[in-house]
Amino acid sequence: MLINGHTELIAHLGYPTHSFKAPMIYNPYFESIGVNAVVMPMGCKPELFPTLLPALFQTTNIRGALITMPHKVAVVDLLDEVTPTVKVAGACNAVKRTDDGRLVGDQFDGEGFVRGVMRKGMVLKGASALVVGCGGVGCPIVASLAAAGVARLRLFDVNLASAQALAGRINEHYPHIVVEVGSNDPEGMDLAVNATPLGMNEGDPLPMDMDRLAPTTFVGEVVMKAETTAFLAAAKARGCRTQVGTDMLFEMIPAYLEFFGYPTTTAENLRAVARLQY
Amino acid sequence: MLINGHTELIAHLGYPTHSFKAPMIYNPYFESIGVNAVVMPMGCKPELFPTLLPALFQTTNIRGALITMPHKVAVVDLLDEVTPTVKVAGACNAVKRTDDGRLVGDQFDGEGFVRGVMRKGMVLKGASALVVGCGGVGCPIVASLAAAGVARLRLFDVNLASAQALAGRINEHYPHIVVEVGSNDPEGMDLAVNATPLGMNEGDPLPMDMDRLAPTTFVGEVVMKAETTAFLAAAKARGCRTQVGTDMLFEMIPAYLEFFGYPTTTAENLRAVARLQY
Repeated sequence: MLINGHTELIAHLGYPTHSFKAPMIYNPYFESIGVNAVVMPMGCKPELFPTLLPALFQTTNIRGALITMPHKVAVVDLLDEVTPTVKVAGACNAVKRTDDGRLVGDQFDGEGFVRGVMRKGMVLKGASALVVGCGGVGCPIVASLAAAGVARLRLFDVNLASAQALAGRINEHYPHIVVEVGSNDPEGMDLAVNATPLGMNEGDPLPMDMDRLAPTTFVGEVVMKAETTAFLAAAKARGCRTQVGTDMLFEMIPAYLEFFGYPTTTAENLRAVARLQY
Repeated sequence: MLINGHTELIAHLGYPTHSFKAPMIYNPYFESIGVNAVVMPMGCKPELFPTLLPALFQTTNIRGALITMPHKVAVVDLLDEVTPTVKVAGACNAVKRTDDGRLVGDQFDGEGFVRGVMRKGMVLKGASALVVGCGGVGCPIVASLAAAGVARLRLFDVNLASAQALAGRINEHYPHIVVEVGSNDPEGMDLAVNATPLGMNEGDPLPMDMDRLAPTTFVGEVVMKAETTAFLAAAKARGCRTQVGTDMLFEMIPAYLEFFGYPTTTAENLRAVARLQY
């Protein structure tokens, strides 16, 4: 990868940056197809974000921004236009500038998660799903599960109001879906998702009671700290099929590439060229 | 070069970015010594600069900024502290943040130029020098020539006031140096320098009357558009010794590296690993 005066910038904005994975996927891919662009991590604390984001989008060589924690919710209010997915999710992870200078946001976390589990053979239409964590990652996953046709959602967050607000948005846009709030019990669920940061740090508790998990439940993880987190290890021990955190990541990137206007590819190709270590 | 969540950012700020050379020197060097840092061009127009610079320096992984046209003069007023070289030059090309959050600026253009001509055997102590162009590059070159002991300076700029202001700063700090202003005649000079952008574009006029250039005059160039610019070609045709634009660049980088706190090296080593095409 040769950065020069023609290189386009994709700013990767979040804090802390140490667990960022996207640069090790996008940059080798761009190099492999001869695109002169680079994803650059920029550690941005919440108080700086409302200043930094619009300033970066006034630079002449920026193509877009990847938005990650803790800005996925806050960014929505800084944009001129957001997609319906962003509205339901209440969170945004991709920003670009239109030719007339407007900032537009979209959201691909949930789409990545859903593409991943469907490609593993899970049928989401009519299914039930528990999502633990209704923050910047959980909300888009729930939004995409709803769009994919689930019949029943069980939503849990340590902050009850977050789960309730998400349930309200689902009720508004998908009134036929049965939504329960306040329990993290995986019993009877076709899908159980950890969408909390639990597992990022040594000694974190598990997000749900694994003893109540049936082997028929498909288990998904968003934490990318390790390939097999403690949560996934416990789910495998129960006999469950699983999806690792980076599957969501790889599956969402083709959608991002399309959004930014770059040549797109498959998640497999991205994995093949990525330089990602767990 | 693998950019990841631990990569440090050195923002390369200027506009337009297309002629930027520094990324192709620093980044291969960093890669060669295993430093996880990247120089990233960011196209910044003048009206954005006072917002962007302080915002970037609030990000958590920035190590410094390379400042280039058109910001080398304007940046001085945005900093908390500048070196004496910046004060005499009236321009700054390097910014870092101290541990207590203050922005400090220094200036290495002139030092790069002077190191280069001295290593080619030129004796600056007691010499006379014509410098055409008293802007963001010319001023630091004059400041460094003064510090290196020249006895006589002839300063020219299409904006006479710029040359006069620079002459005033030289008179103040180096009262023993004889300074003339307003002529670009190289006759009788030991050194003649093009410090204007003339040569960046096809069909630019030459910065001085080449017929009045003696073969004993050493000729220096700051334009890096080509290795041998039309100005250097004409000087060589007169039999002059010359210094190309990128010599200044390579010679200044060891000083920059030291300023930013990275392991430093020689201009030769930098040239050996650089991926720079004229």
